[in-house]
Amino acid sequence: MRAEIIGVGTELLLGEIANSNAAYVSRRLAELGIDVYFHTVVGDNASRLGAAIDIARDRADVLIFTGGLGPTDDDLTRETVAARLGIPLVLHEDILERIRQRFACRGMEMTKANAKQAMVPRGALVLENQKGTAPGLIVEKDSKSFILLPGPPWEMKPMFDEQVVPYLEALLRRRGEAGRKLYTRTLRVCGIGESSVEASIRDVIDQLATHPLGLTIAPYAKGGEVHLRLAVKAEDEAKAEEEFSPVEAAIRSRLGMAVYGRDETTLEEACGRQLAASGHTLAVAESCTGGMLSSRIVNVPGSSAYFRGGIVAYSNDIKEKLLYVEGDLIRRHGAVSAEVAEAMARGARAAFESDWALGVTGVAGPGGGSAEKPVGTVFMAVVGPSGRCRHHKDLFWGSRHDIRHRTTQQALTLLWQELQRAAAGNESGGS
Amino acid sequence: MRAEIIGVGTELLLGEIANSNAAYVSRRLAELGIDVYFHTVVGDNASRLGAAIDIARDRADVLIFTGGLGPTDDDLTRETVAARLGIPLVLHEDILERIRQRFACRGMEMTKANAKQAMVPRGALVLENQKGTAPGLIVEKDSKSFILLPGPPWEMKPMFDEQVVPYLEALLRRRGEAGRKLYTRTLRVCGIGESSVEASIRDVIDQLATHPLGLTIAPYAKGGEVHLRLAVKAEDEAKAEEEFSPVEAAIRSRLGMAVYGRDETTLEEACGRQLAASGHTLAVAESCTGGMLSSRIVNVPGSSAYFRGGIVAYSNDIKEKLLYVEGDLIRRHGAVSAEVAEAMARGARAAFESDWALGVTGVAGPGGGSAEKPVGTVFMAVVGPSGRCRHHKDLFWGSRHDIRHRTTQQALTLLWQELQRAAAGNESGGS
Repeated sequence: MRAEIIGVGTELLLGEIANSNAAYVSRRLAELGIDVYFHTVVGDNASRLGAAIDIARDRADVLIFTGGLGPTDDDLTRETVAARLGIPLVLHEDILERIRQRFACRGMEMTKANAKQAMVPRGALVLENQKGTAPGLIVEKDSKSFILLPGPPWEMKPMFDEQVVPYLEALLRRRGEAGRKLYTRTLRVCGIGESSVEASIRDVIDQLATHPLGLTIAPYAKGGEVHLRLAVKAEDEAKAEEEFSPVEAAIRSRLGMAVYGRDETTLEEACGRQLAASGHTLAVAESCTGGMLSSRIVNVPGSSAYFRGGIVAYSNDIKEKLLYVEGDLIRRHGAVSAEVAEAMARGARAAFESDWALGVTGVAGPGGGSAEKPVGTVFMAVVGPSGRCRHHKDLFWGSRHDIRHRTTQQALTLLWQELQRAAAGNESGGS
Repeated sequence: MRAEIIGVGTELLLGEIANSNAAYVSRRLAELGIDVYFHTVVGDNASRLGAAIDIARDRADVLIFTGGLGPTDDDLTRETVAARLGIPLVLHEDILERIRQRFACRGMEMTKANAKQAMVPRGALVLENQKGTAPGLIVEKDSKSFILLPGPPWEMKPMFDEQVVPYLEALLRRRGEAGRKLYTRTLRVCGIGESSVEASIRDVIDQLATHPLGLTIAPYAKGGEVHLRLAVKAEDEAKAEEEFSPVEAAIRSRLGMAVYGRDETTLEEACGRQLAASGHTLAVAESCTGGMLSSRIVNVPGSSAYFRGGIVAYSNDIKEKLLYVEGDLIRRHGAVSAEVAEAMARGARAAFESDWALGVTGVAGPGGGSAEKPVGTVFMAVVGPSGRCRHHKDLFWGSRHDIRHRTTQQALTLLWQELQRAAAGNESGGS
């Protein structure tokens, strides 16, 4: 079964927003094993939208429209699809009532324009919109399905997942095409570059060339880490798991603790789990990253169980006063130095009475660089419960934001590695 | 003149990335006054790409391709366009030499696959790629232009701006269509909702209905603020400025200090400029936002001139120890309260010896909410040089990240308003 995605909206053609809906829907369709050969974007114009419909229905079985279901005159998808299919629009009383209630809840009168959203092609399946006024619609004609979805992603995505996916699964069964779906698993790797990761698992990749179900591994470099995306078409999740399991084990045996998590797990989550498991706490002292490191750590729900807090020390006297960094150390080595990074970590550990602490200092730019310490130079240090300090120096490039983000990524990588090391040490010590 | 953008790449159809190139190119084309009626995305497949080319050349004068110029067998754009136009590919010695040098610089051998990138349709204009090995190409045939650009945005964008824009400007002149370009100006508004903004400037919008050059205003709600996008087609920048100027003045007279900046200016930049101008310093104390507020402030280059630093106090004892918040205050009112927000701001102001300070505390969720203080409840306080404190309480919804981001936005809005008030006070005091 083939699907085509048609994004409707002049704002897309003006480049005011990217067509993220097409990417989202495509991912879901790939998971269902439905092929997508084309995406089209067309403006709020009935004749051009009509032309796009004619082209797409010649080459796809399912046409998925996003956008153009709103209340204004510009919103033409409903009307144009109905006209093209020769199906009249009829008033749907339930939808009208639901829209009226939505307005009433907010103490507002429903406008005439909104009533237009209650018109549906006769016989259409109506998809409820939990997040907005425009319902989705599914119309079937001549063995083709026309699926009309609202444009705002926060309305479209839940509607797709909860109502369109079950429809498509049933359609695949009806067409006798239900079968293998695409399952994916992402292994997230930190502290090793993409080419080294690839070299380390080269034999695993080569062996997969003859995998009976065509399991593939694709490496992606992303935000200072590497993602290994495993994909396989399988009958069900259990079968996919059966295929992923030995490949994941082979990868882990080669990459060890560099594989910090799976799928949506972030590096800060992986560190958090490790901290929670060991009952240890963490504090940070940041200079160039200016709170970004704390912010990533805090974005993990439940981080208050192990995160004590942080200090953004953006001037030397604050480093001295709040982090107990000796003024002499700064004068001798400079605020951007391994010595100061360590002193900041030790200061944070003392101030917050935490088991672990990170210290980060660097030149985020665009100003402040020198020949010896150019923009992008960062020093970081992690101190653990034993009081031992591990250092790292790096040189990042890119915008101020990029440098700061890469710095937080590297700091968390360092923490992850030290947490793993400590856990391994504790285990052998306890046996 | 009409252009169509064709994104080539199976990764787009699988939804692994969104088609951000189309959005970027569309914005640039709109600025040049070139109409875009369709975007198409097609996979790495010669026959489907060929079909897309045939459809597009029937409805556009300029076809802009992004992607499919890489060194692998999957990369088919160059070959497919040449075949469709009946133009042979010939080896371009200069390109080959340039690719060879690029590899030599990195101490590597050029692979055979890369040599493919030196093949160009005979007579094509070659666009240099400063950031990668694949050159861009422009082929003209039957009064149509085919512009082939690399897929990675960091290669495509500079090539488009530096080489394709001048080509298109010349093409417009050749076709006798050079004329008015689209100019835009965005006014950024904080502290007022979209509908109130629209109501306040309703008369300005209505007056523009008869604007001789068709100047338009479009309001967008974005990340807790409102953007008013002014757009006009004009001969040149000076003429556009002449049109924008009175409209901007009219908007500012109605919205006052709520208009904090123009175009790419962020709220943290606007606050920073005001602080730098007054020679004042700032510090922050954060709980639920966990460093995100500091991080936004620090993302402004030069922020070290006025930002003293921040404390992420993620537990009550840290609030007491580092921010001098009385334990009794927390026990009586709770850590999430107006009283504690104020005490945190005053504590930060004392610890960092700053003129201004922000204190923020709240429930970011998903846990930690109560009937009285549900998830999303935040209290914030700003204290200025006079020692006066202004409070704000809010209730945000969304994910943990959304709530935290909206909180930083509201905190900066509060700061902006107080900075404006202080500046106005100083001015009248000085007269």
